[in-house]
Amino acid sequence: MKQPSKKSALSQSNSIPSPVNVSNSAAEKIKLLRKKKQDHSEILDRLLQGSQTALGQAITLVESNNPTHQEQASAIIEGAIASAGKSIRIGITGVPGVGKSTFIESFGSHLLKLGKKVAVLAVDPSSSISKGSILGDKTRMENLVKEEMAFIRPSPSGYSLGGVARKTRESILLCEAAGFDVILIETVGVGQSETTVHSMCDFFLLLKLAGAGDELQGIKRGIMEMADAIVINKADGDNIKAANTAKLDFKRALHLYPPKESSWTPEVLLSSALYNEGIPEIWNLIRSFEKKIRENGYFEENRKQQSKFWLLQSINEQLKQSFYQNPEIKTALNEQLQAIFDKKTSPFIAAKQLLEKYSKL
Amino acid sequence: MKQPSKKSALSQSNSIPSPVNVSNSAAEKIKLLRKKKQDHSEILDRLLQGSQTALGQAITLVESNNPTHQEQASAIIEGAIASAGKSIRIGITGVPGVGKSTFIESFGSHLLKLGKKVAVLAVDPSSSISKGSILGDKTRMENLVKEEMAFIRPSPSGYSLGGVARKTRESILLCEAAGFDVILIETVGVGQSETTVHSMCDFFLLLKLAGAGDELQGIKRGIMEMADAIVINKADGDNIKAANTAKLDFKRALHLYPPKESSWTPEVLLSSALYNEGIPEIWNLIRSFEKKIRENGYFEENRKQQSKFWLLQSINEQLKQSFYQNPEIKTALNEQLQAIFDKKTSPFIAAKQLLEKYSKL
Repeated sequence: MKQPSKKSALSQSNSIPSPVNVSNSAAEKIKLLRKKKQDHSEILDRLLQGSQTALGQAITLVESNNPTHQEQASAIIEGAIASAGKSIRIGITGVPGVGKSTFIESFGSHLLKLGKKVAVLAVDPSSSISKGSILGDKTRMENLVKEEMAFIRPSPSGYSLGGVARKTRESILLCEAAGFDVILIETVGVGQSETTVHSMCDFFLLLKLAGAGDELQGIKRGIMEMADAIVINKADGDNIKAANTAKLDFKRALHLYPPKESSWTPEVLLSSALYNEGIPEIWNLIRSFEKKIRENGYFEENRKQQSKFWLLQSINEQLKQSFYQNPEIKTALNEQLQAIFDKKTSPFIAAKQLLEKYSKL
Repeated sequence: MKQPSKKSALSQSNSIPSPVNVSNSAAEKIKLLRKKKQDHSEILDRLLQGSQTALGQAITLVESNNPTHQEQASAIIEGAIASAGKSIRIGITGVPGVGKSTFIESFGSHLLKLGKKVAVLAVDPSSSISKGSILGDKTRMENLVKEEMAFIRPSPSGYSLGGVARKTRESILLCEAAGFDVILIETVGVGQSETTVHSMCDFFLLLKLAGAGDELQGIKRGIMEMADAIVINKADGDNIKAANTAKLDFKRALHLYPPKESSWTPEVLLSSALYNEGIPEIWNLIRSFEKKIRENGYFEENRKQQSKFWLLQSINEQLKQSFYQNPEIKTALNEQLQAIFDKKTSPFIAAKQLLEKYSKL
């Protein structure tokens, strides 16, 4: 525990009594503040030493809505950020039933054997409704959960996709500062969540199944286009032939897309996560990807662009939030809406008046 | 020209000399202000009487970036809005070459013969680059342009899609207040422009061509889904057979979409705008559409939802604009971005600090 420096203006000499204008409650507040500062700097210290407990505590602060917790979270991130950024961030998506949990379990275990520290995060805005459909039930990753070098964290619940995204992105930084080499970010195809995950990872992996002839159906065009690799999972037993056919189909489909900014050509691989087959090949592919984009400069450039995107995204969201959550604006907005419906004003004039009102609050 | 009322605080009695603290320049300003007020209330009066010149002047004020013009525009819209909203708003889209101008010429002439007043507006955010690709060359609608009951206005240039949309939507209100019964809003498939037009019209018409077997290709899925009718144009001469085949194909394709909120089942029609064939049938279809949605309440409900959408859209845009165009924020944003790139802060902390700075400006 750090002691306040004796040079601090807040430190009290023993020989001189407290001046009468320092009330007891003020003194209490200062003490509390000092304690909080110690708390979060202690969490930061332990986090930087690789403590998973501290990492968990820090992420809990990030996920909290309490303003004090948010301040502490910011302080921890500010202290951690210089040590962050050194992992490879891998986004993993696929429809329910494709075997994401089994895949992550198998892939993660392989990485652990190679001496990597693996963190698994989730972006699942539906988890607030379904109470954690991804990673919520950690027993689905029985083996990974027992490993000391693995850190598994479900999607924060009770937030919109924007909120989940922000909190997940801050959690990535914290995991990295805690020394995790590989960050796996899992998502399901709920609304815009894939795009969100794509905008926070280096490598985007799409898990697929070989199905009854409908391999290319039901894929949102945009998702295929974002993939750096398509992995056809459950390629085992009677499924191998179908998986090989699907592989060819996907290869052909991928050719239809324009070349990627990263100059990377997406590949199609097979895996059987259940039998741990095809897993080392996927990791090798990701390593060649990383090598290539580090050499051609895309790695750094992409991360810069992602950071810029998140800065602007965050500003835009908070601008809207401050406006729409203001109680006076809420009332005025309803009044203006009624005036529009009553043909007394136009949407644009109403908007102008609301913004004028807002600027004077 | 209206004279200021004698009861006005601004009127001067002849018997009492001006007090010395009213400077000449202040008096000039008051006179100017009074004149401007007369100007725009005169424009409003003439517009409400159906003057196309006044309508043109009012739209020019709407399209101006000059703050005084914008104020005058707002005053005119406020005065006009109670008389607006009585037209049917028809969005028309289709790829270049499909014959939009010829179609609008033919369709518009038909409506004029039925005694309608027809306004044609365009939403074409590319016009600022290509200097008015839609409607810019009014000679493309030779006959319509000569008609007294037709008003044709190209897309405002020099704006983003958001700006074009706002100005077009205000122009719709002004056209309606000037007594136009049918508003045709033309657009090409540039980026989001179809979605934008869809959000400001009652009926959305997609023009198509019967092509060499690729009728269903190259259609953005979302556009087909928005259409209330698909019209296969240039269904004449050798093209009739192909047009009939295309009609069946489109009918089949439309069945794949979920039912519309309006309970309207989209239809596929044939036309030859060049030979004025199929045009009355299209107008009859739109009339049955209007009858149906007025009866089931969708007409009013949809317009309300559209107004609400434009109110929120307009607020969000202006919130961002005020923030990002602030010179101090511009500088601070660049500094924060650099700090992010230098790993001294995170996007979210940077956003928070920028917003705090902004709130204190």
